[in-house]
Amino acid sequence: MPNWLLPENIADILPSEARKIEELRRVLLDNFRLYGYELVMPPMLEYIESLLTGAGQDMDLRTFKLVDQISGRTMGLRADMTTQVARIDAHLLNRHTVTRLCYAGSVLHTKPSGLHATREPLQIGAEIYGHAGLEADAEIQELVLACLALAHVKDVRLDMCHVGVLRALLAADPLAKAQENTLYALLEAKDLPSIDKLSQNFSPEVRAALMALPGLYGDISVIQKARAVLPAFAGIQTALDELEHLVRLTGTAHVTIDLADLRGYHYHSGVMFNVFVPGLPNAVARGGRYDHVGEAFGRSRPATGFSLDLRELARLLPIAERKGAIRAPWGSDPALREKIVALRGEGEIVIQSLPGHEDEQDEFDCNRALIFDAGKWILQNVG
Amino acid sequence: MPNWLLPENIADILPSEARKIEELRRVLLDNFRLYGYELVMPPMLEYIESLLTGAGQDMDLRTFKLVDQISGRTMGLRADMTTQVARIDAHLLNRHTVTRLCYAGSVLHTKPSGLHATREPLQIGAEIYGHAGLEADAEIQELVLACLALAHVKDVRLDMCHVGVLRALLAADPLAKAQENTLYALLEAKDLPSIDKLSQNFSPEVRAALMALPGLYGDISVIQKARAVLPAFAGIQTALDELEHLVRLTGTAHVTIDLADLRGYHYHSGVMFNVFVPGLPNAVARGGRYDHVGEAFGRSRPATGFSLDLRELARLLPIAERKGAIRAPWGSDPALREKIVALRGEGEIVIQSLPGHEDEQDEFDCNRALIFDAGKWILQNVG
Repeated sequence: MPNWLLPENIADILPSEARKIEELRRVLLDNFRLYGYELVMPPMLEYIESLLTGAGQDMDLRTFKLVDQISGRTMGLRADMTTQVARIDAHLLNRHTVTRLCYAGSVLHTKPSGLHATREPLQIGAEIYGHAGLEADAEIQELVLACLALAHVKDVRLDMCHVGVLRALLAADPLAKAQENTLYALLEAKDLPSIDKLSQNFSPEVRAALMALPGLYGDISVIQKARAVLPAFAGIQTALDELEHLVRLTGTAHVTIDLADLRGYHYHSGVMFNVFVPGLPNAVARGGRYDHVGEAFGRSRPATGFSLDLRELARLLPIAERKGAIRAPWGSDPALREKIVALRGEGEIVIQSLPGHEDEQDEFDCNRALIFDAGKWILQNVG
Repeated sequence: MPNWLLPENIADILPSEARKIEELRRVLLDNFRLYGYELVMPPMLEYIESLLTGAGQDMDLRTFKLVDQISGRTMGLRADMTTQVARIDAHLLNRHTVTRLCYAGSVLHTKPSGLHATREPLQIGAEIYGHAGLEADAEIQELVLACLALAHVKDVRLDMCHVGVLRALLAADPLAKAQENTLYALLEAKDLPSIDKLSQNFSPEVRAALMALPGLYGDISVIQKARAVLPAFAGIQTALDELEHLVRLTGTAHVTIDLADLRGYHYHSGVMFNVFVPGLPNAVARGGRYDHVGEAFGRSRPATGFSLDLRELARLLPIAERKGAIRAPWGSDPALREKIVALRGEGEIVIQSLPGHEDEQDEFDCNRALIFDAGKWILQNVG
């Protein structure tokens, strides 16, 4: 096997794509800042205990482990930055006020999440700590929609769900509770025959509700339908009230509800959402409330946020238009050097031809050349 | 040990420092672009064969290894991005013309390079492939000086050396050649007594030259001194000629020569340089020529470049001045929403107070507030 082949689902990012990603990264980070989010940069590596605290088994399996030669302890390569940012909020910043944080960086996965998925997503996201109310969730949803608008992505659909519905059903029936992980997977797959089979000994109303959940998706009228179909447990009523309130706060966005879309169920504590756009089968952004994550660090704070993969979002963008560049000769003439410095100072890309390479075609679109004419350096248009 | 302690020499970057690093990153990448360098993003993980090809044993020891669950092969976490970029030039871009590439990203080290050194430097750098002449080295040195000027770093000193001097001496004496690694380390440490002892059986002229090398540092007059003191081997003459020529090309910069400063000797093939600035004991940037690195990938191309650690450079900068922000109330009034969107569109940071948190002091310096007065939303200065 040649030395230069990369591992599966790992790739270099070449200039045209790198440029798009870098521009998008800046636009999104700048937008976070305009909303008052402060940038933090957690490390690539941490002890496994802090990295996986509260993150669940799924994250454990996705995390590369290695041994720290200094301490002899096991470290993990971050597979997600959310718990890292929660740790920073809890222990480094240690504020009691509302804290808005954002981040951007590579995360690594032992296995890809799908056949063509990268094992090195470029995760970017934003989080609000310290406010338990739905207003924080509404701000996060507004922010994710603003980010997609800045990326010129159209026909965005915000799909909401709530962990409270399934939690309330499981709390009402110990037999169902014992099957939590299986039920979660079956609901995700909307596998009605298997749910039917598994729930034969459950209480009739829990069973009927579980069978109804996969059908409870669509526009916001689903919330009214759910009130009619699902049992009137307090937890379910609260979940539906929260969804209804949040849909109202979100205003004019295209919102759908899917009460069986429970991805992230183990990690979240309230409203969850997925954002879908044309051209991508999977959600382009995900988020929701995860109030309990800080507990493991000894300091529980209400938390809600979202994240997305910059690489995937950048794929939706057209190739950035190449800015015209200027070709300049090599030379030590001070007037030439001065002219080049001045042009770069105006934001022009000036590429000096190295001796012997004057006729090479360049990757940059050199539409002008710096030439010496009548005693001075001037710009000339070139084909 | 609490869950949230980080491994030694690994740290989170908090908002004030993260902001400086992010700004510096953008300024340097933008500057690379103005010189015609294209951005590439190599992966964090590669098979060990491609990652360590031509990189030497030192890099091997610094590289974290882990097993790829998909292929069962050993992968390494990049400890340096230079060989990755050389691989991209050789096999992905596969051009025959001059290619200018730049990059920025985290690298990870098994052990810190010093007591207080981070194990996760943020490496940023630029490389020219395809031109063997000194003009490429001169452009790289100009670029590194331009980057430091953009970072407002003053009193920059460019310290040059050349691998050709030691290579020529070793080529002239097999006994000396057999001690290459030891000699290299002793010269680095300027350990004259040990060099004296080790070289007792070397040829007299090689021995005298090795003893003279640690004293050959200072301003550019060192080159003339070296011509007088060192033997007239062709390799040595070429090295001194190259240094002299490059000093001339570099122009007005503050240049020093240190013929025994051989850090990177195994990796480099011609001129090497270190950039020193007040306040940092170690070089803030390093670079040089490494023409042979591509060979291992089956495609040798002349190459020269530099890199630096953004975190270390950012430490030299003053804390960025905080831009005044605007505090706005929470609310669903469309006029309020419209006003906030307009202000953010003008580049203003607008932070909405979440209900119940109106009186909290914010990390941002909110010097204005959005208030409702006489039927419209207006800005008011606040203490």
